[in-house]
Amino acid sequence: MSSIDDIVPAAIENTAGAPERRRRVGGGRGGDRGKGRKAPATLRYRSILNTMDPSSIVSDEGLEAIHEASLSVLEKTGIDFMLGEARDRLKAAGADVAPGSERVRFDRSLVMDLVRKAPGPFTLHARNPERNIEIGGRNIAFAQIASAPYCSDRDNGRRTGTQEDFRNLIKLAQSFDIIHMTGGYPVEPTDLHASTRHLDCLADIVRLTDKPFHAYSLGRERNLDALEIVRIGRGISADQLEAEPSLFTIINASSPLRYDAPMLQGIIEMSARNQVVVITPFTLAGAMAPVTVAGALVQQNAEALAGIAFTQLVRPGAPVVYGGFTSNVDMKSGAPAFGTPEYMKAVMAGGQLARRYGVPYRTSNTCAANTLDAQSAYESMMSLWAVVQGGGNFIMHAAGWMEGGLTASFEKFILDVDMLQMVAEFLTPLDTSPDALAMDAIREVGPGGHYFGTAHTLSRYETAFYSPILSDWRNFESWSQAGQPTTYDHANRVWKDTLANYEAPALDPAIREELDAFVARRKGEGGVPTDF
Amino acid sequence: MSSIDDIVPAAIENTAGAPERRRRVGGGRGGDRGKGRKAPATLRYRSILNTMDPSSIVSDEGLEAIHEASLSVLEKTGIDFMLGEARDRLKAAGADVAPGSERVRFDRSLVMDLVRKAPGPFTLHARNPERNIEIGGRNIAFAQIASAPYCSDRDNGRRTGTQEDFRNLIKLAQSFDIIHMTGGYPVEPTDLHASTRHLDCLADIVRLTDKPFHAYSLGRERNLDALEIVRIGRGISADQLEAEPSLFTIINASSPLRYDAPMLQGIIEMSARNQVVVITPFTLAGAMAPVTVAGALVQQNAEALAGIAFTQLVRPGAPVVYGGFTSNVDMKSGAPAFGTPEYMKAVMAGGQLARRYGVPYRTSNTCAANTLDAQSAYESMMSLWAVVQGGGNFIMHAAGWMEGGLTASFEKFILDVDMLQMVAEFLTPLDTSPDALAMDAIREVGPGGHYFGTAHTLSRYETAFYSPILSDWRNFESWSQAGQPTTYDHANRVWKDTLANYEAPALDPAIREELDAFVARRKGEGGVPTDF
Repeated sequence: MSSIDDIVPAAIENTAGAPERRRRVGGGRGGDRGKGRKAPATLRYRSILNTMDPSSIVSDEGLEAIHEASLSVLEKTGIDFMLGEARDRLKAAGADVAPGSERVRFDRSLVMDLVRKAPGPFTLHARNPERNIEIGGRNIAFAQIASAPYCSDRDNGRRTGTQEDFRNLIKLAQSFDIIHMTGGYPVEPTDLHASTRHLDCLADIVRLTDKPFHAYSLGRERNLDALEIVRIGRGISADQLEAEPSLFTIINASSPLRYDAPMLQGIIEMSARNQVVVITPFTLAGAMAPVTVAGALVQQNAEALAGIAFTQLVRPGAPVVYGGFTSNVDMKSGAPAFGTPEYMKAVMAGGQLARRYGVPYRTSNTCAANTLDAQSAYESMMSLWAVVQGGGNFIMHAAGWMEGGLTASFEKFILDVDMLQMVAEFLTPLDTSPDALAMDAIREVGPGGHYFGTAHTLSRYETAFYSPILSDWRNFESWSQAGQPTTYDHANRVWKDTLANYEAPALDPAIREELDAFVARRKGEGGVPTDF
Repeated sequence: MSSIDDIVPAAIENTAGAPERRRRVGGGRGGDRGKGRKAPATLRYRSILNTMDPSSIVSDEGLEAIHEASLSVLEKTGIDFMLGEARDRLKAAGADVAPGSERVRFDRSLVMDLVRKAPGPFTLHARNPERNIEIGGRNIAFAQIASAPYCSDRDNGRRTGTQEDFRNLIKLAQSFDIIHMTGGYPVEPTDLHASTRHLDCLADIVRLTDKPFHAYSLGRERNLDALEIVRIGRGISADQLEAEPSLFTIINASSPLRYDAPMLQGIIEMSARNQVVVITPFTLAGAMAPVTVAGALVQQNAEALAGIAFTQLVRPGAPVVYGGFTSNVDMKSGAPAFGTPEYMKAVMAGGQLARRYGVPYRTSNTCAANTLDAQSAYESMMSLWAVVQGGGNFIMHAAGWMEGGLTASFEKFILDVDMLQMVAEFLTPLDTSPDALAMDAIREVGPGGHYFGTAHTLSRYETAFYSPILSDWRNFESWSQAGQPTTYDHANRVWKDTLANYEAPALDPAIREELDAFVARRKGEGGVPTDF
């Protein structure tokens, strides 16, 4: 056959019998390609801009219908605010608080007047200023998985998490610039007592990473401890901390239509100090939300607007993020599903809603797979597709999320890092400068030649294309001789190499000392009393 | 912890201990869910509209720079047309044909005047009118893998293809409505003699499928045989065939900057009869094209415009498709790469170019993986992402493509079908009707309840969400008890089930008889002489 669609495979076979491919941890362009195995700085992924306009999955009319319906829910059904202090504040602001109940109903102008006070894009500060990240606008920032009860790797299997697992996952997050922040405990370290766990974990995060991080809103004292730890870590005053948002918390509604006391306390403490609140209803269509995507979005939006409004009641202008987390259940089993077509639609519609309110948009990289198979990749890639095409800004669970969030996988972490880096490369502008258009090279080679040896090629081949961490591009024969490794095998090797090459970021000894002293004092005080 | 990001995994674990999940071949909504194992008609995937506007990866200025550079290549460097008849026609039309050479240079107004004659969207006719497909505009149509020298499945391994493999892959393509057409031989049946292979294969395609199909342009006689077979299959006259495009051919440039004789003969025979020509340069950046994506696009566009112009010289208004197939090589080994960030950019820029010329756009679902691992999924999903966000219309190699096109994989076919169906679901409009907004259900459930038993849920749960073919959503314990199957295991089972349940589409006995007689006569004549 002389068709090139036919000839090409043969040509491929001829050119692909290449020397063993050199890999390096971290991938990326240029750098010490093939020279060593040190985890690279990959500086180029510190800031990612979405070069394409976000797409609309619903019409303007459809978006207004969702918006209006959610305002109607807030007006007629209302939301339970399960904290007296929050209800008192809302009542004082003009909300309708039903006597003797937790129910709060909002006039739609009250909600929207408050939501309009929310700022647009803002900077989230890190203890290393080079790690500051812009949240909102065209920026995209990734946080690793948070809050998994289990972790797993291929060598040691699936297990409840320990401090060692926690630390290792934090070290992995520090090792790749594509991970911009720590979104919580990647795995719950169950060997640490709950009363002091937050002290150990947050101090570890300050020691092991220099990126922005998150504090759980699990009661006022934990928020205050976290605020002190982030202040110490940055080596700044409380006033400067209040001027520079440096800590974020995820506030989940207890869907449907409730905010519990710790979450509301978290908003009060964090927003009052101008820190970042990410309001995120988790609205699983067919379980805690209506079975239709549009209905789940109505509920998500009602909950999100109520939460955002409350942040602006606490402190007008406090940084806040609109979080969307609507997916569907498998109606045959009740199991939650992630990275589905319905999830994609919800992510994109959520982005339209967030932009309608002028607030940065949080969404997630999700999957429901149990192992590092094709499903784990297609569900995550569909999530990322919706993130990019839908205009997501603040991406939680971006690396390591498995089993619908039950497990932090070391191999999935590496797979996600590679996929995130490919997304970042996709979003770099396409160079159409005269030199990139290669007119001279085309004239030089002419019909029937090839470009392997041209000056244009030789001057660029080292850095021309993204070099993936995991993709195995050897031809079938070479790959077979190497034992037919899968992506799972490669990912297993890479996370171990990365941990072996981990280097802690610099930390001023005085800061380290102050941090250690604070943690020791608070642990001596017993941390936060727990009832178990 | 009381955060929902924490609570949800536990809730998931509780709800996910479900009875063994029922699956059915073909997935999709509704239908005989769980009742039987017959391959379903999945009628809903017969037509797919891209509900979102395509995105731009290059600015208008960048696009014009590529366009202008490619016209300059055609004007100054020119293209080799390796067929005297083609050069004569081009010379008569005003092109500059260098005496004693194959080189043709085009004045830019000559090229663009011809390209402007190309029609926009058109209908590609099938022998079953329900299978007609719209090409162009917002339509997306998928063809299965074509032209692989090898095929593979998990039971029998990787091997050169036979007629049985060819037939089985054609049967798989017929079994899923998401596959709209047959794009060539999914695997080369090497046990059939080359002189008569096209007769056996095309007759098989007519017998085993009722969808539109492709003919290779490998010399005039094969084109003429194919035209007769498609006419017989549709049971129409030659005049009606000429009025209704029913056969397509892929025309590859012999990049860089050449069209060989069989390809040009294919354009002459097919365009003259108003059949569909898909002009597709294969421009591998760093090998047969410049190492920059923009440079490879300049060359792709020069070759594509020359090919499109030639179709319109043969017959103004003949249906033609702009094909883009620019990817990059691994500069460490020379191996081609697919489904990369660079591939995505090229796919999207190609779409912008095709729309600039008002011509439907062909692109492909590619990957370079050797097995059904995570890589096979993320590379294909990145290809599909670029297809959708880039406005692709006519998608070749949409199911089954592995190893950069060297292998047609039975398991990858099923994986791709599931991914294509998920893409199709993503593109269905999001219902924001009052009923979908679920205001009554939200009022009924109120704060703190759940939606499992509401009338709104019960009336919809059977059909609410896409039911994937392969995704395993069981919780870890149930999945472990089932032997921890991967996507590869599920795909292996599904293709065998699908083949076992294959039903041939109806074929008028008179047509079958005429077809058999034609093939017998042409085989008796020796088919097409070959030199081996």
